[in-house]
Amino acid sequence: MNYRMISRVLGLILLIYAGLMVLPAIVGLLYGETAVPFLKAFLITALPGGILAAVRPKSKIMVTRDGFVIVGLGWILISLVGAVPFVSSGSIPHYIDALFETASGLSTTGASVLADFDGMPRGVMFWRIFNHWIGGMGVLVFLMAVLPMSGEHSMHIMRAEVPGPTVGKLVPRLKRSARILYMIYIALTVIEAVVLRIFGMSAYDAVLHAFSTAGTGGFSTMSNSITGFQSKEIETILSVFMILFGINFNLYYLILIGSFRKAFFNEELRTYLILIAVSTALITLGLHRVQQMQTAAAAHAAFFNVASIISTTGFGTADFTEWPEFCKWVLILLMFCGGCAGSTGGGMKLSRIMILFKSALAELKRISRPRNIVRVQMDGERVADETVRASSQFAVVYMILLLLFSILLSLDGTDIITSFTASLSCLSNVGPGMSAAIGPAGSFAFFSARSKVILTLAMLLGRLEIYPILLLFLPRTWQR
Amino acid sequence: MNYRMISRVLGLILLIYAGLMVLPAIVGLLYGETAVPFLKAFLITALPGGILAAVRPKSKIMVTRDGFVIVGLGWILISLVGAVPFVSSGSIPHYIDALFETASGLSTTGASVLADFDGMPRGVMFWRIFNHWIGGMGVLVFLMAVLPMSGEHSMHIMRAEVPGPTVGKLVPRLKRSARILYMIYIALTVIEAVVLRIFGMSAYDAVLHAFSTAGTGGFSTMSNSITGFQSKEIETILSVFMILFGINFNLYYLILIGSFRKAFFNEELRTYLILIAVSTALITLGLHRVQQMQTAAAAHAAFFNVASIISTTGFGTADFTEWPEFCKWVLILLMFCGGCAGSTGGGMKLSRIMILFKSALAELKRISRPRNIVRVQMDGERVADETVRASSQFAVVYMILLLLFSILLSLDGTDIITSFTASLSCLSNVGPGMSAAIGPAGSFAFFSARSKVILTLAMLLGRLEIYPILLLFLPRTWQR
Repeated sequence: MNYRMISRVLGLILLIYAGLMVLPAIVGLLYGETAVPFLKAFLITALPGGILAAVRPKSKIMVTRDGFVIVGLGWILISLVGAVPFVSSGSIPHYIDALFETASGLSTTGASVLADFDGMPRGVMFWRIFNHWIGGMGVLVFLMAVLPMSGEHSMHIMRAEVPGPTVGKLVPRLKRSARILYMIYIALTVIEAVVLRIFGMSAYDAVLHAFSTAGTGGFSTMSNSITGFQSKEIETILSVFMILFGINFNLYYLILIGSFRKAFFNEELRTYLILIAVSTALITLGLHRVQQMQTAAAAHAAFFNVASIISTTGFGTADFTEWPEFCKWVLILLMFCGGCAGSTGGGMKLSRIMILFKSALAELKRISRPRNIVRVQMDGERVADETVRASSQFAVVYMILLLLFSILLSLDGTDIITSFTASLSCLSNVGPGMSAAIGPAGSFAFFSARSKVILTLAMLLGRLEIYPILLLFLPRTWQR
Repeated sequence: MNYRMISRVLGLILLIYAGLMVLPAIVGLLYGETAVPFLKAFLITALPGGILAAVRPKSKIMVTRDGFVIVGLGWILISLVGAVPFVSSGSIPHYIDALFETASGLSTTGASVLADFDGMPRGVMFWRIFNHWIGGMGVLVFLMAVLPMSGEHSMHIMRAEVPGPTVGKLVPRLKRSARILYMIYIALTVIEAVVLRIFGMSAYDAVLHAFSTAGTGGFSTMSNSITGFQSKEIETILSVFMILFGINFNLYYLILIGSFRKAFFNEELRTYLILIAVSTALITLGLHRVQQMQTAAAAHAAFFNVASIISTTGFGTADFTEWPEFCKWVLILLMFCGGCAGSTGGGMKLSRIMILFKSALAELKRISRPRNIVRVQMDGERVADETVRASSQFAVVYMILLLLFSILLSLDGTDIITSFTASLSCLSNVGPGMSAAIGPAGSFAFFSARSKVILTLAMLLGRLEIYPILLLFLPRTWQR
């Protein structure tokens, strides 16, 4: 283990994160609020960051384990210090609550311990939602984009932080890849903010909702989420952008360099769009037939919530926990699924689900005709056996964790649906669960401190696709 | 595809099954009941059976596909004809209900569409529960035990009907293996019936409850299941036998030939016993602390229900849907798990779950130290990569089916817990679900005919470990 390198990179992460705290402080000052909470947090973050970063690595060599440990520890560290402004501003008095809210922000989950936050200082609110934006693309990808890193070895970091069954570089040089990703991310965020502003949001709300959408987070400045804006246009704009941020960013790069054909014929993208269309149609039908909703209103509500759940954003316009059971199940399945690989969306990732289905079909075909060789293919190319194996393995671990967290939450006495969908929603970084208590109209406030810590862990595990966090608990990782 | 061979074996299955119908007819006659329903069923089964069996195969060669198709079709056929006595006796007027009840019997699930069956003729009741015993060991294993079959080719049938990630022969000759399995099965059943008789059950009840336990089914002669006997001794005896029938039958053979050491040091067996002990302790604690139950009473209830659920029998003594949420989750996890491979228990099978956990740990270790080779081991021996792969694949397909059936059931408007645990309970061949409606005090009567067909399919899929049934729906299977 390259401890010196790990120390140095963790230090850099903390320094960058401290630097990012200046932004909400400025926003607060603009609105005449105190900057003291952010100053405190800055010091608590920058001092240890400086000390850790001062360590000079003797070697630049990093193995997979080092990359995973950096990512796992890095995200836990910034969650811990990111909670400070909430506590010291008094907006979230209890540290565990603040930690939950910060991890929910960074992991782009959007589950909140706050039922009502209309009186929250603007700077603190900015920080709350800005974390979605930081966490969406990943703080380490940012690090790679701005700092001179040791080339190919950093690939391990990228692999641990960027979601999906396979991680490809856009261009030969990793640093440039990271920069391109951030450019696209910033550009899309700016476009969304401008569009929202044009359609009537205040500049402040527009920027924060763009942050929230970009990270597919789901925090809103309004206690009643998007319902508060009372605007069908804004809901539709947000739906479209939620869908856009759930798409693999590599495709935007392909479009930028003119490879339209390759981008639009991407199998995962087509499946994603079909899945959205089918889910919207099914829910529209359900709302129309069971709840006698007008078709247009049903379609509007269905589209928004399908976009919100599949992209794992979690913005709310309706309390879907009161929808017909069948509609709820459609949303639950989308929670498992999540966005495309290489997007800011959570869940198991669509391409992984596709690989699972294809490999199940291949297994059946193999049993049917053992002599014919059946291969799993994506985009017309063979998927490596190792990728198929790793995808099933990932799904199994996902299920084990889901059930484990469910049973641990039940110690609070919460019913099966609440425990199960709270775990699922946090592990998939969605936000709301499928019972009234934790639905779009509820909050996670009532959980015990123990359960909040468990869910904090679940959110980080989900965002980092499990292994970087799980590895930290394996004694073997720390042995010489 | 060896259609002639398939036809012949399917014919033999039907003939044997028709022969087995003589038994309930005799029982009915002894109690002065009419034998007409069984005569009808006999003819409906034996006539097509005779025609199919009359086909002479040109070749004795069978491939995996043939074995799977025989098992899949065979089980569907006997479910279809096994329902006849229920309908023609008037005990279950609707055919779909009768089909559900028969498949529930044969698949050893024990979920019932009957809330009250105190007036059911004794012969029909015998038939209802006798199906558990037939389905427990498998009708094709029986066929192999009694008929001259074409040696090694029948291995494909055995593999498709006997559950577990790997299927081993006990002795070099398959026919003898099948006979030994049936001998053990019969001996244990007889012992249980005798013990139950000694402890106060009527001979009729003792035999039927022994059948039900042996197949880990769960049907009882009493509408309120085991509660009806008002005897702690009988509950304890049943608990012990449920656990015994959830153990790999190969271990009983090892004990018979004197290899005690090998039998008792079996890793799956140890894990099974530890899991039972830990689950019982956790539930006892939950019942004692949350519901202020006396420790002894809590431990008794916990032990019985853990034994009932992990063995996937489903006998009831308490309505566990009213237990603390945590206790319910323990039982839900046991429903996933099920009994040992090579037992009559359902679920995913403990050894498969163990392989999944071990391979998840191996994956973590691999990421941690890529250079060290990490192997999955059971009983000190390396598990083949193919078995590990197939186990993850199986788990993934299990989850997909579980979610698929849940969403289809929700079309009836049933809540999430009912849909989910009905699917889980049927797919794992347990019986009761985790909501009041389908719990130990409920029944599956209220589901629509469509949902009953879905659950019938789920039960057969679960009993045959998915592929033999799924293969029938693959067009490729039927292509030349």
